[in-house]
Amino acid sequence: MNNLSHHDITILFLSLSLLLFVARGFGELARHFHQPAVLGEILAGVILGPTVLGYFNPSLQQIIFPSQGPLTLVLNSFMTIAITLFLLVAGLEVDLSSVFRQGKSALRISFWGLLIPFALGAGAAFLFPNFWGNAKADEPLAFALFLGTALGISALPVIAKIMMDLNLYRTDLGMIIISAAVINDVAGWIIFAVVLGMIGTHAVSVGHLVLLTAGFVFAVLVVGRWVLDRILPWLQARLSWPGGIIGFTLASGLLCAALTEAIGIHALFGAFLFGVALGDSRHLREKTRTTIDQFVSFFFAPLFFASIGLKVNFIANFDLTLTVVLILLATAGKLIGCFGGAKVSGFSARQSMVIGLGMNARGAMEIILGLLALEGGLITEKLFVALVIMALFTSVTSGSLMQLLMRRKKEARFFDYLSNKGFVRPLVAHERREAIIELVGVACAEAGLNTYEVADLVWEREGLIPTGLEHGVAVPHARLANITQPMMVVGISKVGIDFDAPDGEKARLIFLILTPLGDHEKQLEILSDISKTYSKSGLVLKSLEAKSFNEFLACIKSGE
Amino acid sequence: MNNLSHHDITILFLSLSLLLFVARGFGELARHFHQPAVLGEILAGVILGPTVLGYFNPSLQQIIFPSQGPLTLVLNSFMTIAITLFLLVAGLEVDLSSVFRQGKSALRISFWGLLIPFALGAGAAFLFPNFWGNAKADEPLAFALFLGTALGISALPVIAKIMMDLNLYRTDLGMIIISAAVINDVAGWIIFAVVLGMIGTHAVSVGHLVLLTAGFVFAVLVVGRWVLDRILPWLQARLSWPGGIIGFTLASGLLCAALTEAIGIHALFGAFLFGVALGDSRHLREKTRTTIDQFVSFFFAPLFFASIGLKVNFIANFDLTLTVVLILLATAGKLIGCFGGAKVSGFSARQSMVIGLGMNARGAMEIILGLLALEGGLITEKLFVALVIMALFTSVTSGSLMQLLMRRKKEARFFDYLSNKGFVRPLVAHERREAIIELVGVACAEAGLNTYEVADLVWEREGLIPTGLEHGVAVPHARLANITQPMMVVGISKVGIDFDAPDGEKARLIFLILTPLGDHEKQLEILSDISKTYSKSGLVLKSLEAKSFNEFLACIKSGE
Repeated sequence: MNNLSHHDITILFLSLSLLLFVARGFGELARHFHQPAVLGEILAGVILGPTVLGYFNPSLQQIIFPSQGPLTLVLNSFMTIAITLFLLVAGLEVDLSSVFRQGKSALRISFWGLLIPFALGAGAAFLFPNFWGNAKADEPLAFALFLGTALGISALPVIAKIMMDLNLYRTDLGMIIISAAVINDVAGWIIFAVVLGMIGTHAVSVGHLVLLTAGFVFAVLVVGRWVLDRILPWLQARLSWPGGIIGFTLASGLLCAALTEAIGIHALFGAFLFGVALGDSRHLREKTRTTIDQFVSFFFAPLFFASIGLKVNFIANFDLTLTVVLILLATAGKLIGCFGGAKVSGFSARQSMVIGLGMNARGAMEIILGLLALEGGLITEKLFVALVIMALFTSVTSGSLMQLLMRRKKEARFFDYLSNKGFVRPLVAHERREAIIELVGVACAEAGLNTYEVADLVWEREGLIPTGLEHGVAVPHARLANITQPMMVVGISKVGIDFDAPDGEKARLIFLILTPLGDHEKQLEILSDISKTYSKSGLVLKSLEAKSFNEFLACIKSGE
Repeated sequence: MNNLSHHDITILFLSLSLLLFVARGFGELARHFHQPAVLGEILAGVILGPTVLGYFNPSLQQIIFPSQGPLTLVLNSFMTIAITLFLLVAGLEVDLSSVFRQGKSALRISFWGLLIPFALGAGAAFLFPNFWGNAKADEPLAFALFLGTALGISALPVIAKIMMDLNLYRTDLGMIIISAAVINDVAGWIIFAVVLGMIGTHAVSVGHLVLLTAGFVFAVLVVGRWVLDRILPWLQARLSWPGGIIGFTLASGLLCAALTEAIGIHALFGAFLFGVALGDSRHLREKTRTTIDQFVSFFFAPLFFASIGLKVNFIANFDLTLTVVLILLATAGKLIGCFGGAKVSGFSARQSMVIGLGMNARGAMEIILGLLALEGGLITEKLFVALVIMALFTSVTSGSLMQLLMRRKKEARFFDYLSNKGFVRPLVAHERREAIIELVGVACAEAGLNTYEVADLVWEREGLIPTGLEHGVAVPHARLANITQPMMVVGISKVGIDFDAPDGEKARLIFLILTPLGDHEKQLEILSDISKTYSKSGLVLKSLEAKSFNEFLACIKSGE
């Protein structure tokens, strides 16, 4: 049978669509609570899989997501392609050159941060094989290497996201954490590739395998990187833009995937290494990277992560002791290793702790490793479930604990203080004072403040220096003693109101900004955010056309 | 068996990679000769398939692209997903609103341009069933409807591309052709969806099928379009940007695909209609459209079109008589129908002819129809090959003939006149006159002209008005009697040379432009193209860093 039946094609599209809808929905929910999207995506699979849907309606679950037959084969193969492309993107995001610039500290932190949890994991695997339920009892070495790697590896994408959220990405501390995670990632994957080869069914010996893997790493990271850096300008100059380079990237990534699969280590590994080599070229344009990244991260990745939940029953296979021990072991190993490495490199105790917490985030990578080990028969479903929960748990706690320790807040954008009720369109006022009173009125009605008192404060401030910005934006503002959170209202004026702007234009987009009296920084932050956002006239014009608060927000978000 | 074997996964990645490499390579080659990329992509499949590779090394061909077994099932299913996403993108590009604005002329041209070839095709199918080799002799009605549709449908993407190449897209004539093609496309697909349902194996009657199809079209194009236009701002405002809306688009497209497949018409049709409905919303941002478009057009589409060549032997199944008759019938029907419709709408004879030629381009859509009919057992391989050749032939000739008739040239960009030899870096000169002589020297060495004569002409022109532009760009130029083609040389100066620019900056990027004496327009065209391209300082700075001509060209192309 070379083609799916009419019925199977229907189910194929239905299941892909359902997986993507639910995974994206929960992914967005997770992001809303400042958690990694992968958390929601895996949860989506748990809901659509045997754990929840299968519990309430097993026959429906088996119709949409059958666990046997040609459709299952097609879906599983599709997910293999999906995760290979995701690893290609993960590779593209690795910035090797900046790692080299960080020098020894990053190397030291990464080394100890990998070694200690690795030793803990491998040791525990050797000492208590029955506790972990080693599925292939005849391969204690492979199992020990696996558990060591599983505890030792960090998840670069999750760590990068946490750093960005906490506004730490471009700081020295942030760059050290990211660089250490990169080294950790690449080293961990190389070890894991060998482990995978060991449990594979092919004929080559372990020595042979290590040699082939080393040869491939050298070929791609040294020779390939050099060649890519030289041919990229030619490709970009001569092929369609940016499609030519997108096609080239994907075709080459798939080729490297085929090569590593042929060697006996997993296809993922080839795609990841190719991504690292290509992403390192200074000729690779941002547009190529983001186009591939957006499509893969919002199509292939959610589908893959959701599909994990289809394979395993997360409640039936949940083992509390196993999970808790795994979390403790993983966290202790990572914290001790990274704290030690950072302390020796001259960081303070608090900074070293932050570095350890940052490196403790695991997320996506861990889960992929676990799935491959499960499919290779190396681990039991119970250990797999424990691994997934450990990976998610460390990712979720990592950010919150760092935030606590650094006393950093997640950076808010000015529009986070706006709401549907504070969107005044059109503004009735024709003149500056009237406009201020109108906007203040809306704000005060919400908060139960006295409109005229507040308006007087704003007017007073306006008297010092007028608040008109360029391109028809104005930002009347004041600080109030009796509020604890910033409050904002935005008004859109059809006629335009004179706020004495430097370019002489009348204000048509007017933001009223009220901040707590004690918080000097917040006011400045919001003002500079608004002025930066509306530095081009295009966005102002587009925003004026918005008919609702959602349309207004969509303009800002899309920058159009 | 729920998973591919280790060997099959290796081959899966290898075959996808090979298909994509060769398809993209030939696709670029086709574009280089100003032909549609689909021409090259199909050729790639013919080379990798039984026709060429299978002829020289059948066993190798069967190892990489097996025609039986689980891998074939996986590849075929992947291609079904690929082409469904391609149709979604094709739908996104349809601009329904602008069609409504074109009014009756477009409707009339489209109607006659569909009816006449449809009648010719259906009539010929009824009268000479044996000539066409109707594979399902018991379904003469379905076959006649198919052949009519196959001759009647136009290929919107190909037509749009030709219009853009000829710089006709935004003209009245261009908009009429595009609009007529849109109506033709949508109507043709609706008819074809019914034909597909008729040859399917499901139980519902034709009447039932037409009703269901009409219901679906109404639900998506009227209700869906209305709903989408209202929820898009919310989605863009609340979800990650642009990933949220990308995920939503793909998930919804797949859902509509599942629905149409369930009705009994093909999955493609649902994705296409959803694309039309979504693409029509004024809230859909350009970035969403291009991200999906780039990924699909340069990954999924080349893979799908190349895979066609794997299915059929194009030489063994080539029938000259059948192919020629098909081309004549298709072209005659389209030209007569469109010419008539356009003439009645008040266009001149020449314009009507141009419209007919434009609408005659078929390309991708025709081939997809043919493939579905082949897989449904409605047509023979011989007729399929003839259809593919007819589609490619009409696409290739359409552009050239229109060009001839309109006496329009494909628009050239200024960098088309630059070459590796004319890239001078760094410029030795320190002063304006020296720089001109240095650049003219390079140009004249190429063309065998007298350097000092030409330099004097350029210097004379420079004396009238200095040619320094903003941001450190200068464009010394002259028109020469003894050349027939524009000649350009570009020099990069490290020190900067004073070309008396309005912003006072020294020129570091200096274009020498020599054009034929008789051609006034060309000089202006090149000058304004350069000044537009370098209107932002970012690109100039980036271009100055280019170490080779390829890097320089890559900067311009990517706009970074």
